[in-house]
Amino acid sequence: MATYRICVLPGDGIGPEIIAEGVKVLKAAGARHDVAFAFEEHLIGGAAIDATGTALPDVTLEAARVADAVLLAAVGGPAWDTTDSSQPRPEAGLLAIRSALGLYTNLRPVRTFPALADASTLKPEVIEGVDLMIVRELTGGLYFGTRGRFHDEEGAGADGAPGQRAYDTLEYREYEVERIARQAFELARVRRGRVHSIDKANVLDTSRMWREVVHRVAADYPDVELTDMLVDNTAMQLVANPRQFDVVVTENMFGDILSDEASMLTGSLGMLASASLGDGTALYEPSHGSAPDIAGKGIANPLAQILSVEMMLRYSFGMVAAADDIARAVAAVLDEGWRTGDIRQQGTRADQLVGTARMGDLVVERL
Amino acid sequence: MATYRICVLPGDGIGPEIIAEGVKVLKAAGARHDVAFAFEEHLIGGAAIDATGTALPDVTLEAARVADAVLLAAVGGPAWDTTDSSQPRPEAGLLAIRSALGLYTNLRPVRTFPALADASTLKPEVIEGVDLMIVRELTGGLYFGTRGRFHDEEGAGADGAPGQRAYDTLEYREYEVERIARQAFELARVRRGRVHSIDKANVLDTSRMWREVVHRVAADYPDVELTDMLVDNTAMQLVANPRQFDVVVTENMFGDILSDEASMLTGSLGMLASASLGDGTALYEPSHGSAPDIAGKGIANPLAQILSVEMMLRYSFGMVAAADDIARAVAAVLDEGWRTGDIRQQGTRADQLVGTARMGDLVVERL
Ligand SMILES: CC(C)[C@H](C(=O)O)[C@@H](O)C(=O)O
Ligand SMILES: CC(C)[C@H](C(=O)O)[C@@H](O)C(=O)O
Repeated sequence: MATYRICVLPGDGIGPEIIAEGVKVLKAAGARHDVAFAFEEHLIGGAAIDATGTALPDVTLEAARVADAVLLAAVGGPAWDTTDSSQPRPEAGLLAIRSALGLYTNLRPVRTFPALADASTLKPEVIEGVDLMIVRELTGGLYFGTRGRFHDEEGAGADGAPGQRAYDTLEYREYEVERIARQAFELARVRRGRVHSIDKANVLDTSRMWREVVHRVAADYPDVELTDMLVDNTAMQLVANPRQFDVVVTENMFGDILSDEASMLTGSLGMLASASLGDGTALYEPSHGSAPDIAGKGIANPLAQILSVEMMLRYSFGMVAAADDIARAVAAVLDEGWRTGDIRQQGTRADQLVGTARMGDLVVERL
Repeated sequence: MATYRICVLPGDGIGPEIIAEGVKVLKAAGARHDVAFAFEEHLIGGAAIDATGTALPDVTLEAARVADAVLLAAVGGPAWDTTDSSQPRPEAGLLAIRSALGLYTNLRPVRTFPALADASTLKPEVIEGVDLMIVRELTGGLYFGTRGRFHDEEGAGADGAPGQRAYDTLEYREYEVERIARQAFELARVRRGRVHSIDKANVLDTSRMWREVVHRVAADYPDVELTDMLVDNTAMQLVANPRQFDVVVTENMFGDILSDEASMLTGSLGMLASASLGDGTALYEPSHGSAPDIAGKGIANPLAQILSVEMMLRYSFGMVAAADDIARAVAAVLDEGWRTGDIRQQGTRADQLVGTARMGDLVVERL
């Protein structure tokens, strides 16, 4: 029997609660498909800062490197919020592991669950049948460019008086654009054959290079239809007509913004999973954050975490049947009316409003 | 009788068609309030490139400087689309005039018109009563930082092979953040007393400085409630719960993306006006683009342009009654059922589906 090693990173806030459900579902799915998983838990984010002074301890990174896959929950919280750039930040741990593992492709599938159609603030006829994949570049751009803050003796204050300046650099290299574009076109090929490439080529030099490289790659995929769309227009089109999209490929910061927006098509950010892929170990995490306001209450929605387990089975282990089982189980639980607070609807029965652990159990029962 | 000089910049695409309606309404409003307007038309954008080789000819900038206000329509179109950074671009003309006139404050009011409630893809109960003001910083950030593209002998291609690199710089100075923050707090004071400041302080150094400066300014406005919100979360919250917002202040690129998204709350980008204010002449333009696909057909919606005239009367000339008249006239036209194609609804009568010029006439008749 195959045994895969899973590096488990609960992180902060609701992280420990939801990741327990991910692990539960992973174990159950493995048992049904004759695969064993060995779990090793490590610190990241605020929890790691508190224990070790750094958001990504070496031992965590090493464990991630040698694992067959990483399951992460979420990092961050008000306890570590600071505008002081010299202080450690939970988010830096997340960025560091993405970068160190070379996870340049972030996949965020946005699919509407029929059972949740009326949980969205968008009209049911607008979101019906939405099924898009955001392909976000994850190890470049503003997130990883040179940045700094300094005091400027002249020019930074009003009328040239002394004052502070700050900068961040949005930088891309040709091969970084090329490899993420290829991922998008490959995906489109096994999906509905359409790629929207998002940029701000009417203003940014990085976007102009992005657009050129994407078009060069497109020449290798004559069967895929490519559309360029400006990021501001895309923010509008995602709400105006989301069904036009199949694969949406974009740089890091635009992808961050657009994927959170797109989550609203599904009714809740609590439903959105993500896979971060590179050349080594892949990492799976919900698209949502650590929700410190509801941490420890046992009410967080574990479905994005569970769906990230689904992505793990699919992309890291080629366990397509097991992944499909999880997707089906989640849909069944929703169809039966079970809800956590964030996706509760008008018609939700009080006895079907459930907590984190119960939601995990319900999915396992339906596997 | 006072005479104000208006610099009229039609630009490209639908620009000439819609600006004619703006001018028409401005004349009519002036006549009713004993104010005369003198109009001087100049080239900008693609039209200027074709005629002069540059997107912002000196004569245009000079005319704008000496005018009492600038009315602009829109620039850009596929005829001038290129990823070659050495070629002139229509958008560069727009950015250049914003910068040269020091128009650091861009106001984009997002209000839902009851008559258009069902033109939005969002549910009526979600957008009912939405009334928010996006205060976008307009002369800094990624739009105006150093940028470049170059060929790198090592490191830019895969495996360190030669290849291209490109970069854009997101830069802010302390006083730039301070002055836009002040504008936001001043506005909140005469509105509903709430400011959301949008940043990405968990990643960017510019955002950390932004957040610190905004909080320092906030100390002068104890009567205004300040909330920090991350840009990704904001993209979600605008769709999830738009009524929570009153004044939303943010840097240039985030403001570009979020304001296009927010336009969907009103049912159409064709309804969104904007005012760009600085220390000299102010500029008024629709938030939408030049819509080359429908240019020359006489079917474009002129209402955003007409509402930008409303903003001109209010902010540049203190003509509050005249501005209110225009707002009322637009609402009346919509209430009566008149529609251009972009805001047409299920119940729109065929004889009430009108073109650009007729829509302008309808507004004038109701002044
Ligand atoms: C926590 C934060 C640094 C992160 C990001 O911006 O990438 C998050 O928003 C995400 O989308 O995964
Ligand atoms: C045309 C373009 C350069 C411009 C911008 O990005 O500022 C437009 O999108 C806007 O919002 O006014």
